[in-house]
Amino acid sequence: MSKKLTKRAEDYSKWYNEIIQKADLAENSAVRGCMVIKPYGFAIWENMQAELDRMFKETGHQNAYFPLFVPKSLFEAEEKNAEGFAKECAVVTHYRLQNDPDHTGKLRVDPEAKLEEELIVRPTSEAIIWNTYKGWIQSYRDLPLLINQWANVVRWEMRTRLFLRTAEFLWQEGHTAHSTKTEAVAEAVQMQKIYAEFAESFMAMPVVKGYKSESERFAGAEDTYTIEALMQDGKALQAGTSHFLGQNFAKAFDVKYTSKEGKQEYVWATSWGVSTRLIGGLIMTHSDDLGLVLPPKLAPIQVAIIPIYKGEDQLAVISEKVEIIVKSLKSKRISVKFDDRDTFRPGAKFAEYELKGVPLRIAIGNRDIENNTVEVARRDTLEKKTISQDNLINYIENLLEEIQENLFSKALLYQKNHITEVNSFDEFKTIINTKGGFVSAHWDGTIETENKIKELTKATIRCIPNDAKEELGFCVFSGEKSVRRVLFAKAY
Amino acid sequence: MSKKLTKRAEDYSKWYNEIIQKADLAENSAVRGCMVIKPYGFAIWENMQAELDRMFKETGHQNAYFPLFVPKSLFEAEEKNAEGFAKECAVVTHYRLQNDPDHTGKLRVDPEAKLEEELIVRPTSEAIIWNTYKGWIQSYRDLPLLINQWANVVRWEMRTRLFLRTAEFLWQEGHTAHSTKTEAVAEAVQMQKIYAEFAESFMAMPVVKGYKSESERFAGAEDTYTIEALMQDGKALQAGTSHFLGQNFAKAFDVKYTSKEGKQEYVWATSWGVSTRLIGGLIMTHSDDLGLVLPPKLAPIQVAIIPIYKGEDQLAVISEKVEIIVKSLKSKRISVKFDDRDTFRPGAKFAEYELKGVPLRIAIGNRDIENNTVEVARRDTLEKKTISQDNLINYIENLLEEIQENLFSKALLYQKNHITEVNSFDEFKTIINTKGGFVSAHWDGTIETENKIKELTKATIRCIPNDAKEELGFCVFSGEKSVRRVLFAKAY
Repeated sequence: MSKKLTKRAEDYSKWYNEIIQKADLAENSAVRGCMVIKPYGFAIWENMQAELDRMFKETGHQNAYFPLFVPKSLFEAEEKNAEGFAKECAVVTHYRLQNDPDHTGKLRVDPEAKLEEELIVRPTSEAIIWNTYKGWIQSYRDLPLLINQWANVVRWEMRTRLFLRTAEFLWQEGHTAHSTKTEAVAEAVQMQKIYAEFAESFMAMPVVKGYKSESERFAGAEDTYTIEALMQDGKALQAGTSHFLGQNFAKAFDVKYTSKEGKQEYVWATSWGVSTRLIGGLIMTHSDDLGLVLPPKLAPIQVAIIPIYKGEDQLAVISEKVEIIVKSLKSKRISVKFDDRDTFRPGAKFAEYELKGVPLRIAIGNRDIENNTVEVARRDTLEKKTISQDNLINYIENLLEEIQENLFSKALLYQKNHITEVNSFDEFKTIINTKGGFVSAHWDGTIETENKIKELTKATIRCIPNDAKEELGFCVFSGEKSVRRVLFAKAY
Repeated sequence: MSKKLTKRAEDYSKWYNEIIQKADLAENSAVRGCMVIKPYGFAIWENMQAELDRMFKETGHQNAYFPLFVPKSLFEAEEKNAEGFAKECAVVTHYRLQNDPDHTGKLRVDPEAKLEEELIVRPTSEAIIWNTYKGWIQSYRDLPLLINQWANVVRWEMRTRLFLRTAEFLWQEGHTAHSTKTEAVAEAVQMQKIYAEFAESFMAMPVVKGYKSESERFAGAEDTYTIEALMQDGKALQAGTSHFLGQNFAKAFDVKYTSKEGKQEYVWATSWGVSTRLIGGLIMTHSDDLGLVLPPKLAPIQVAIIPIYKGEDQLAVISEKVEIIVKSLKSKRISVKFDDRDTFRPGAKFAEYELKGVPLRIAIGNRDIENNTVEVARRDTLEKKTISQDNLINYIENLLEEIQENLFSKALLYQKNHITEVNSFDEFKTIINTKGGFVSAHWDGTIETENKIKELTKATIRCIPNDAKEELGFCVFSGEKSVRRVLFAKAY
């Protein structure tokens, strides 16, 4: 494996794939479109999960687990949802293998073991969950029902990319039931806010909060709230969505409750999810031509310490010092790795932690022992400083916070510089094809215009921002009247 | 739903199912053999996961994630493993649905969307993982490789029971690779020890550590180490297994490494797992005719506090006191629920927490406020005591520990009283059919005898205990010579 990473400016897509490979995050598997998430990549996901799970529980949600399979008859019950996912479903048709009589040592599907009803591997779990909720909800006392599930789902995508779009992916899916429309909408909006908070405070990835146009909505939703991030190549990434499902699933699965007044009413629903796709967003928001750059709050290793030594004796002296540092850092819940492997030289270790995006690297050698110093290197700015050991722990703690903030500020500046207002279709095309990013434009509100623009530019409506101000104008494409600008972009 | 639980002595199996239903742990789903794990049951699993995950990481393991699907050609590569699981596999054959031309609004499998190679939904992941390890292992420097995965797996069991045997279940599976046989065996034994420690210290469930006879081994293993627990009805439960896989998978997937001496060698492997089955074991170890009994270390709610009041004013005074108690308990990481719902009466709440196995219940009423007391009720012994509020937090902390120990002692006593040495087949049959539990008997070491005994008594060899002493004797069935006793039992 060549040490040299392709530069972003040369080939952004190749750079992305190489980072994933060289930083040991994930790889393609023997199953078409399915990835193996390697330990270092999975540790990032675990950190994401821990924070999100805490945020969900703090807002009253509980975890549960529903079956991987959805019987076809349930899958097709909510028609729009079924239609939206039918074209990319893994379908289980048999439940047994047998020895292949024609090929010794090989197996074949046992034709006798055909299922009476096919099972769909869940692409999303509304159907199986709402079929279950029917038994759980009788009275207003059972509401709201606030449930989340961490699970794997499968969507048979034709073109896949590690983390961004894989046939199987890991995610969380919240599914809630409410007695009123107001409450359900508030829940959907709350979850959008939580996703945005997570993206910005932990991933250091600024997002635009908005809602989807009809054609970009989740299949079966009345409204889809989204958080949209911007990658360094000017393409947008839908990073999380929260859906107000109206009474669509309640009606499809006949889920009613008795109100305080004794009336039978359909319940109101939401669902919301983020997935391992976030790791793709994390990579493309911060990383540079030297490799991955991770925000400290999600980095599996926040500080790597590398001894510079000749011979066992020097290593022993250094190790003694480092052990004290490691202990102090751990007591502050800072994740630290002392890399004293003797099978690699310091230079190779420096390169490895640079590639892996470890926020801080500390080198400590013989002279440092004499001078009571260490060398601290920041991954984000690549600055190096020689620091006294005396106040090191505080220094590191503050520096990690500073890095977290710096990464966010930098990404926010990039985002702000890449939201461009345009007032003509020529301008629109120019920006999309050169500068990229979000294009803020008037749109006449029709699907026809949306489709035409997509056809001509590959740009889609990413969202109508929550805070879009009312402003009279004319659609950049059709010239029809419009009351607010929406954000277009090419997207992952 | 009737409040009354079937008694264990009446119908143990019915009692088990009712507890799961009434304590809101899980339920059967619309998918044959697959369960829905409800929030309260899932919270127990989350507590189990947290402790096990910590223990795995403390012993150097890292988490990763491998695909849900195994291509048939990989699945069949290790012959014994394939043979062991082929008869109970969910098989994906198609990747798309289409509108059913004969039934408007219905879907059918698109016959055009047939996979070239069928995909098996993983019943266990050795095949896909060893196929991946081939790319990860080149040199002795890459070893040991110590990886764990938390995942769902599917085994198309014909007879299923909630938690104990379900078509889909949740588990963790460790898969490790080593340069020497000694190291791999030590790993397998270490994981058996960790499982035993978890079972005894957290689940308060005593286990026998042993290894399996050949016919009870994992398909593809050279040795299977097991922990075997004993349920209250005298049946054994295999609670966790750890396999020394020899070089079987390394050879099937051609995984070699270059040794320090520059030689090409096959690596040595282990795999090990525990699953949501543990929740079944937890239920059947401690619970009683009043409902679930949970050990404090795994209870989602350790302390439930119930106000006894008339009118809003009294509740306000009580709530003020309780809030201080709740805060103090939480600062000690004790999980507490203040149940001030006005839709249920205290009696109903008492019954609910009894059914749900909450270790401690605190009642606090008007008189308690006057006397500076609370009433504390233990779920395990059903004792109630009136306690001063002054030293309450310490009292609760100690009492939770005492309950944890008491549950273990009680279960251990039951286990000790249900390991019966027998020296004839008549005795063997009598014990198995009356007292139940483990029967410690001499066995001639042949599969024929094992099968015959199973046929005649339904008892199987649960394990050869790790600490079985050498003792000359004669097989209870065949009269042939034997050098140690093994443990038989009827099992779940």
